[in-house]
This record gives sequence, C-alpha cells and structure tokens, in this order.
Amino acid sequence: MSNIIITIGREFGSGGRIIGEKLAARLGISFYDKELIQLAAEKSGIHADVLKGADEVAANPFSSPFVPPSIDQGSLNDKLYKYQRDVIREIASRESCVIVGRCADYILKDYPNCIRVFIYADMEYKVKLIMERHHLKDTELIEKIIRRTDKNRRTYYQYYTDHKWGAREEMDLLIDSSLLGVDGTVDLLEKAARLKMEQAEA
Amino acid sequence: MSNIIITIGREFGSGGRIIGEKLAARLGISFYDKELIQLAAEKSGIHADVLKGADEVAANPFSSPFVPPSIDQGSLNDKLYKYQRDVIREIASRESCVIVGRCADYILKDYPNCIRVFIYADMEYKVKLIMERHHLKDTELIEKIIRRTDKNRRTYYQYYTDHKWGAREEMDLLIDSSLLGVDGTVDLLEKAARLKMEQAEA
Repeated sequence: MSNIIITIGREFGSGGRIIGEKLAARLGISFYDKELIQLAAEKSGIHADVLKGADEVAANPFSSPFVPPSIDQGSLNDKLYKYQRDVIREIASRESCVIVGRCADYILKDYPNCIRVFIYADMEYKVKLIMERHHLKDTELIEKIIRRTDKNRRTYYQYYTDHKWGAREEMDLLIDSSLLGVDGTVDLLEKAARLKMEQAEA
Repeated sequence: MSNIIITIGREFGSGGRIIGEKLAARLGISFYDKELIQLAAEKSGIHADVLKGADEVAANPFSSPFVPPSIDQGSLNDKLYKYQRDVIREIASRESCVIVGRCADYILKDYPNCIRVFIYADMEYKVKLIMERHHLKDTELIEKIIRRTDKNRRTYYQYYTDHKWGAREEMDLLIDSSLLGVDGTVDLLEKAARLKMEQAEA
C-alpha cells in the first residue's frame, strides 16, 4: 500500500496540533510538527535554535535584496522554508504520517494519497481552549495572541504558496473543531483516513 | 433525544444533492430539497409551478420599489424565501432531517444539533459527474451551466443572509466530494452525524 499523508493547517487555538498528534497515534503513523525544524537543521547545518525564530514566518518582503544573505533574516526564512519543503517531500515518499502546518498541503498537492485538512473554530471556542490548556485568564491577551499568530501563519502561507490560507479550494476537508470537540474531530478524521486507505487498496 | 438537522450547501455538480439523499436514507431521517417548494406552496397558497421559477434565485435588487408587489418578480422571490424559511423552522422543530440549500444553515444557525455542511469539488470532477449522470458530452456547455447555477446560488445566499456563500466561518464541515467520492462522502457524513448524536445524548 502506498503511504497516506494527512496535512493539517490550523487556526491557533483550534486544537489542530493535538488533533493531529492523537490522529497519528490512532493510525499508528508518524507525527511531524516542530520536529520539522530539527530535521531542517540537520539537513542545512544551521542550528535548530537559529531556525526556530524563522518557523512559519514569511521572509520580510521589504528586506533589501542588497543585504548579504548570511546576515539577512528574510533569507534565513526562505532557507528554512526550502529545507522544510525538501524534508516534507522526503518524509512523504518514505512513510505514512500527519504533518502540521508549514504549507505541507501545498508542497504535497500532487501527492496521490494526501488528505489536506484545515481545522478552525470561532474565537470564543479558541479562547476557551487556550485558557484551559495554558491556565491563562486574560481573554483580551489570548485574543491578541490568536490574531497575531494566525496573521503570521496566513502571511507565511500566502507568501510561499500564492494561495489563500484556509481557502476551501486548497483543502479536501475543513472542520470546525467545536462541532465535535478534540476527540470527536480525531474520530472523524480517523474515519476519513481509513476510507481513503480502503479506496487506495481497492 | 432532540432532532438532528444536517444542512447541505453545495456547488452544482459536486454530488451534494445525492449525497444528502443517501445520507438521510442511511440515518433513517427525512430529506428535503425540491420538496420545500411544495411545502411553501401549500403554506402560501401560491401554486408550486409559479414558485419553481423563484427557487434559490434572489430578488432583483434593481427592481423598482414602485411596482405593485403582486406583479413584481422580486417580491415573489422574497415571498418564497420567507415561506421556505418558516417551513424549514417548522420541520427542524418537528423531526430530524437533511435539508439541501435554501440558506437552511443560516436559518438554523442557532439550532443546537445542526451540522452545517458544504460540499464542493474542482471543475474537472464536477463536469465528469454531470456528464455521467445526465449523459451529456459538451464540456464547455456543462461548465457554463455550472458557473451560472452557482452564480445564482451565491447571489441568493448572499442576498438573504449577508454572508459569503460556502465560507468556512458559516459552516461546520466542508468537504471536497472528489476526496472520497459520493458514497465515501456519505460514509464520512454518517460518521459525523452519529458522533454528534452520541454527544447530544451523553
């Protein structure tokens, strides 16, 4: 059987990461999120701590093209994108897995057994989820972090793909995680993955 | 147990109607699509044949407010919308069902056990599905019909709801029917409905 890849784009606070992690465990396949930075570090020879600051952040479109690449932050972001892209392609050709973020849906768009998922929720639900998970209380601050993080993700995605972040045209399945909650969403995505695998084997 | 309602918005040719029909049969609940016109006709006293021409078509925003309502087509469209809206609310309070189109997701947005689904697919898949189903061959003509029908549905939806048609913010679940095909999509939506019903009972 060929590999099945599930890419998960997600709004911050929607539970996308934990849903992806639980889904991978259910299916007995690998899970990649922050792990991709370490792999890109190994591939590039750039220290992971340096790359972390560039993760899912677009190169600054206003950075000067005359600044030497070695000291240009924009160039570092571009490098991380390219190394992560290569890592994602290598993983997809090697094993079944769940990959969170990093434009994986776009990078693997022509891959046959790929389910491109986007997980979102309304602001109230996301704030509640973050409050519970991180024991925070300041609603206003949480909302601010959500908006800023998603702004970064949106800019990163649009910069490297030229597509709209979370648009249905780029996705196979979009689900509001408040419909069924974290575990219910995992149940539903597991069903989608098993149906896809059955069809690939038929 | 309270009723479960599944509303299905759909791009023309995505298989949304047949998916809804099969889903209702699987769950053993009622299915409403064109049936809503007949029910609106009974409620309004306007003949169903007259209402058919106004189905999922928005009132013309340029029609004169000085034309007497009885002969104004825009007014007929508004009337049909309002009668269908009342019919949809009555159905939802009475029984579990699948309702296709007619802004049902918007009309029932505060309804507790409602799953608001949108079904779409890329143009190639939709053309193929229509070709097979209606034994048509003219790809260009089919594409034209798809674009025009969806334009009407989009305009109708946006006119009566002030929301963007098929935007994820208005939906709980969006699925590209080419991911799993008609029957696979029915399988997945059945799973979603059963999970929701289990949670409602818990």
